[in-house]
Amino acid sequence: MLEVCLLGTGGMMPLPFRYLTSLITRYNGSSLMIDCGEGTQMALRKKGYSSNPVDVICFTHYHGDHISGLPGLLLTMGNAERKEDLILIGPKGLERVVNALRVVAPELPFKIVFREFTEASADFEVNGYKIHAFKVQHGVPCYGYTISIDRAGRFDAQRAKEAGIPLKLWNRLQHGETVTEEGVTYTPDMVMGPDRKGLKVTYVTDSRPVDAIVENAAGSDLMICEGMYGEPDKLSRVKEHKHMLMQEGAELAKRAGVRELWFTHYSPAMTHPEQHRDDIAAIFENCVIPKDGHSVDLMFEEE
Amino acid sequence: MLEVCLLGTGGMMPLPFRYLTSLITRYNGSSLMIDCGEGTQMALRKKGYSSNPVDVICFTHYHGDHISGLPGLLLTMGNAERKEDLILIGPKGLERVVNALRVVAPELPFKIVFREFTEASADFEVNGYKIHAFKVQHGVPCYGYTISIDRAGRFDAQRAKEAGIPLKLWNRLQHGETVTEEGVTYTPDMVMGPDRKGLKVTYVTDSRPVDAIVENAAGSDLMICEGMYGEPDKLSRVKEHKHMLMQEGAELAKRAGVRELWFTHYSPAMTHPEQHRDDIAAIFENCVIPKDGHSVDLMFEEE
Repeated sequence: MLEVCLLGTGGMMPLPFRYLTSLITRYNGSSLMIDCGEGTQMALRKKGYSSNPVDVICFTHYHGDHISGLPGLLLTMGNAERKEDLILIGPKGLERVVNALRVVAPELPFKIVFREFTEASADFEVNGYKIHAFKVQHGVPCYGYTISIDRAGRFDAQRAKEAGIPLKLWNRLQHGETVTEEGVTYTPDMVMGPDRKGLKVTYVTDSRPVDAIVENAAGSDLMICEGMYGEPDKLSRVKEHKHMLMQEGAELAKRAGVRELWFTHYSPAMTHPEQHRDDIAAIFENCVIPKDGHSVDLMFEEE
Repeated sequence: MLEVCLLGTGGMMPLPFRYLTSLITRYNGSSLMIDCGEGTQMALRKKGYSSNPVDVICFTHYHGDHISGLPGLLLTMGNAERKEDLILIGPKGLERVVNALRVVAPELPFKIVFREFTEASADFEVNGYKIHAFKVQHGVPCYGYTISIDRAGRFDAQRAKEAGIPLKLWNRLQHGETVTEEGVTYTPDMVMGPDRKGLKVTYVTDSRPVDAIVENAAGSDLMICEGMYGEPDKLSRVKEHKHMLMQEGAELAKRAGVRELWFTHYSPAMTHPEQHRDDIAAIFENCVIPKDGHSVDLMFEEE
């Protein structure tokens, strides 16, 4: 199971009734966050989550509304006596930006590990999360992310028996270990069936609708996409500021064939994004226009 | 009239139900803020105030919970097309810290004017606010502030008449202008009675209780003082971290002879600060244990 929660849904500035956009996923005791604007630690706490299981934070880009909550979160993690490394992932500039912001959080009882990239796409693996960053189109270098959880195949006892693999090795092989016993090497693929369908979440904000989004979001269980405005007459405005209408996000979701679509990064001027629901559902039916804290437990398929 | 509002009352970290400590005063269309932690712009908006009348922000010190909301507030001011200079006042390090935080707010449509000081006390005057900073005792250099509004004496028509001052000059003299007419120079003190009692607010947080606080807060209409904990058994803890118990703040208020006392900078661990009210009132009766957004309109005395 992968728990996915959209901690905030706002763009530009935090509001008393709407935190800035930030995603958190929880899997196997380890949490992953994407973006951390001013107030994200409040949203985290409001949801009842603590900060220390957050082992990795990915950044789409370094506009203030996506990263200015980081120093406060780092301090809170420090106050909670975090000792484990914290991995930060983001495009070029990550270390420079974070170290500048750390002027107010210079001493921390844990280490920050930077994973900075410059390519059009980049891949990372942390605690079972497969993280793929892909370039989108904003006023500054900006990336979308897919977070995938793979699922191994079923253990195939019949095959293991037929291959004559000693019973005492089954468990280790099933857990991915390669074992050499009395000069014979046994590998997991000798006992495991084909990989089963995993889970995939795509998060895209601060971008014009570009093909890279469709290509990368393809087949996602959940796509979370910016929807700065729901009024079609705001098109020239979103084009100018390199953002997206909800309608454009819905078209992307349709092309990508995702299972479900959520919106985020609402303009502060859009007080009631849910009023556009019918318009959006006409393009992509399985859409949610969430409020802060909206969450879902994504389950692996039964077989 | 001076409007005083405690936007937040929290210390260390912002909570969903408690913003970080920050004071705002409103006088003659110009607002002054003291401290700006993560989420302060949300508290401002919750109170229904806009950011652009804020012409000056004073900082007590540069721990994250007192300044990390600045870049977001600057961006919001910029989005609201502020053009006027913004004055920032604070101890040594101000420009370095603010410029580092501005890594996420590099371009603003207004100018920031730094007023950095290193002495044990410093004085500034902005838009009718007399601002006095005085050193307190924390783990890093930290200052308290008194904000005073002077009140000129009454216009004395009898004196003006007796001094033979031309009637047409009375208005200009009354408004503080010095006027030369037909070779004779007239000054405001020729028509004004003695200064009347003004208004004085003292704000102190992140300090042990030191004499400088009593000396500077003396005679304040309102003193706002940190009260990290209300439990006397937390004394060794506040001593270690250079903070104060509510009881210590109340003793200071009593010694300083202030009119009214509010607390702020509650520990996140203190969920119900108001439960200590009776204990505190036994030391200093006219105390308030405020929640976020608590405000008062301080009025000049009638004569």
